[in-house]
Amino acid sequence: MSYAYDATRNEHLPEAVAFPKDSGQVAEILKLATAHGFAVTPRGAGSGMSGGAIAARQGLVLVMTRFNRIVRIDADNFIGVVQPGVVTGEFQRAVAGHGLFYPPDPSSADFSTLGGNLAECAGGPRAVKYGVTRDYVLGLEVVLPTGEIIKTGVQTVKGVVGYDLTRLIVGSEGTLGVITEMTLRLRTQPQTVETLSAGFVKMADAARAVAAILQSGIVPRALEYMDKNAIFCVKNYLEGGVPENREAMLLIEADGSPGQTVEAVQGIEKVLVEHGARDVHVARDADAAAGLWRARKAISPALYTYGPHKINEDIVVPRSRLPEMVEKIRELGEKTGLTMVSFGHAGDGNIHFNIMLDKNEPAQLLSARQAVDEIFDFTLALGGTISGEHGVGLAKAPYMQKEISDAALGLMKRIKAAFDPAGILNPGKMRL
Amino acid sequence: MSYAYDATRNEHLPEAVAFPKDSGQVAEILKLATAHGFAVTPRGAGSGMSGGAIAARQGLVLVMTRFNRIVRIDADNFIGVVQPGVVTGEFQRAVAGHGLFYPPDPSSADFSTLGGNLAECAGGPRAVKYGVTRDYVLGLEVVLPTGEIIKTGVQTVKGVVGYDLTRLIVGSEGTLGVITEMTLRLRTQPQTVETLSAGFVKMADAARAVAAILQSGIVPRALEYMDKNAIFCVKNYLEGGVPENREAMLLIEADGSPGQTVEAVQGIEKVLVEHGARDVHVARDADAAAGLWRARKAISPALYTYGPHKINEDIVVPRSRLPEMVEKIRELGEKTGLTMVSFGHAGDGNIHFNIMLDKNEPAQLLSARQAVDEIFDFTLALGGTISGEHGVGLAKAPYMQKEISDAALGLMKRIKAAFDPAGILNPGKMRL
Repeated sequence: MSYAYDATRNEHLPEAVAFPKDSGQVAEILKLATAHGFAVTPRGAGSGMSGGAIAARQGLVLVMTRFNRIVRIDADNFIGVVQPGVVTGEFQRAVAGHGLFYPPDPSSADFSTLGGNLAECAGGPRAVKYGVTRDYVLGLEVVLPTGEIIKTGVQTVKGVVGYDLTRLIVGSEGTLGVITEMTLRLRTQPQTVETLSAGFVKMADAARAVAAILQSGIVPRALEYMDKNAIFCVKNYLEGGVPENREAMLLIEADGSPGQTVEAVQGIEKVLVEHGARDVHVARDADAAAGLWRARKAISPALYTYGPHKINEDIVVPRSRLPEMVEKIRELGEKTGLTMVSFGHAGDGNIHFNIMLDKNEPAQLLSARQAVDEIFDFTLALGGTISGEHGVGLAKAPYMQKEISDAALGLMKRIKAAFDPAGILNPGKMRL
Repeated sequence: MSYAYDATRNEHLPEAVAFPKDSGQVAEILKLATAHGFAVTPRGAGSGMSGGAIAARQGLVLVMTRFNRIVRIDADNFIGVVQPGVVTGEFQRAVAGHGLFYPPDPSSADFSTLGGNLAECAGGPRAVKYGVTRDYVLGLEVVLPTGEIIKTGVQTVKGVVGYDLTRLIVGSEGTLGVITEMTLRLRTQPQTVETLSAGFVKMADAARAVAAILQSGIVPRALEYMDKNAIFCVKNYLEGGVPENREAMLLIEADGSPGQTVEAVQGIEKVLVEHGARDVHVARDADAAAGLWRARKAISPALYTYGPHKINEDIVVPRSRLPEMVEKIRELGEKTGLTMVSFGHAGDGNIHFNIMLDKNEPAQLLSARQAVDEIFDFTLALGGTISGEHGVGLAKAPYMQKEISDAALGLMKRIKAAFDPAGILNPGKMRL
């Protein structure tokens, strides 16, 4: 039962669970699966948001948590070689011990594994400055569904020999191969980090402030927002509370050398005030900053105060279209009578959009589903995408064809067959 | 004849040349090619360094220079939509007019096209801070060899719906599809740039200085080196000349806000002096800086003073292994009696390694080829790659299997077949 579910609260009982400890064992299992035609679903911590680790077609769940070794941290060349079962936060702390920095920081970093992060191409707040998981993967060891063990990519930032199998496998949601080792790019640990928060009476002003900060040439390492309902959820986490009439709150981080950080903070404060921010605070120390992030990370669980169930989407729009999207969400909330909450990575236009409901009420479920449909269409009309960092998996498979044409989907199916002729690896995901 | 060659001085006369002007025309041509089985070789400016644009199997050359339109520059969302025939430098200037910055900057930027840059995943000096072409491609319009026109990727930094076709096509050297439009990520134009140069009596000191600069947390936007023979080639370009006993010279750029740039320059000067640099100069103005870059870019053509022919390779090693590689090159120069020159992107460990010779002398040609073989083996033994930014094409196809295993090559061939069942697109490249 422990290996039947993930963070989507979806549940499929597998027929068997295996805990391989090296790539040879993975190869043997996949060869058997290809020969006998049973499904294999690779699994890290099972904290995914789209059902990637769920055995949708039963078969075997391949639990990768015994691949838990940090093989090598090379402080001269800024790389780390690591197995996929290592928890992201643990790896971040290990490289920090060498003065190095692994920027990708999904909210689940304290429990999700690097293998899962790579499979889904996880994002997180720091993407606005540092990019997403994909940007840190230099090379892989991968077991193909037919049992061959291959190396992809390089150990250096540059490298163009052959097709880019590395980045094809990153984000392929465990459908093309099983990652058994990865070479990750690191940076130097920034010397200082400062955290700011600001409240806005109007959401549109907050969105304009976000754009203005980035246009000023400052690149904060996080530029997060939460809407009115999200603020309400977590106001008890916010020291001193939040004034009543705030439609939006921004949470901003700047990092670099002490000089760079001071310069960035001053620039950000100036832009915030120019755009009507009300409660501009710079966290006075690391504890106060951690408190702000606790509030930000508490949103997702705290949403259940609005209803027993949640539909959680992960859309991206060009960031100049953020006010239109927020207005659309407000309208849909009014129309359906359901509580809608949005928050997320404003600097990237990446919105975590939630509808709170009681799924046992058919009328609520129907209007929530219609609202999701409308949001996805509107997202695509604005030039966005229906998943920024959670993946397609089971949760978004029904909507995938809104974004991907038949010709492109056909090509993806042929690529899938090139890797996995028997179709044994994580079947039922992504319409592939 | 004009469409028979590229910068490799290789030459294959095609049977026909077409100049399509829209994706519909490209689709018609590719459909015909798939139906009738003739080869199609896409071509930009023909300035590639590995033979990618050469019609190795005759057939049709598809000249993309009429795709020369900058479709849209979106200064709010930091993206540019552009056709593949636009010259890279022209695009850089156009976006600079909006206060924006397209960092990838191959030495050929004044004449190479964006389509070619994407096909080869071009690099250049700025990769050490800003990454390579791949890191700036968000989405593509691509015509498949079977004639379907597909869109890949997104218009935002985040996006994980379906397989990453975008990055699979970038660097595929025109073998998977013909790019007809691209959405590129932009940054804000840095406010200031400063350029430094420094000489070293010992190459090993220069390499240690490179490592120390990066370990200090400073990220210069260029960190180039040239060896003794390269310096000698271009010394007339260097104001005031170069003292006799210099084994290496570094050329370094820092950018950012004025405050950040000053801080970086001071930090770099300090590290240089600590590591025994002799002639540390900060270019006094933009003209002086441009002079230093003219010298750097003059190396490649100036090499012909050492011999009528050149074998030009593009290897990458983990940057801490740079001194070992430079020593290896020196040894091979002594052993063969041929002039060997190396220069390139020290911050990335990306070495442009040249052997000067007279190809009409069979003995010279033989020892040069043996030296290349030895260099590639040594590169791979150090954990490097045999091409950082020039691609495989024809030039490196004979060596590809040194780096790519049979299992991985087999997979690449199946991917090629998934895109191009008739094998009509740029055949004979990359052993695919």
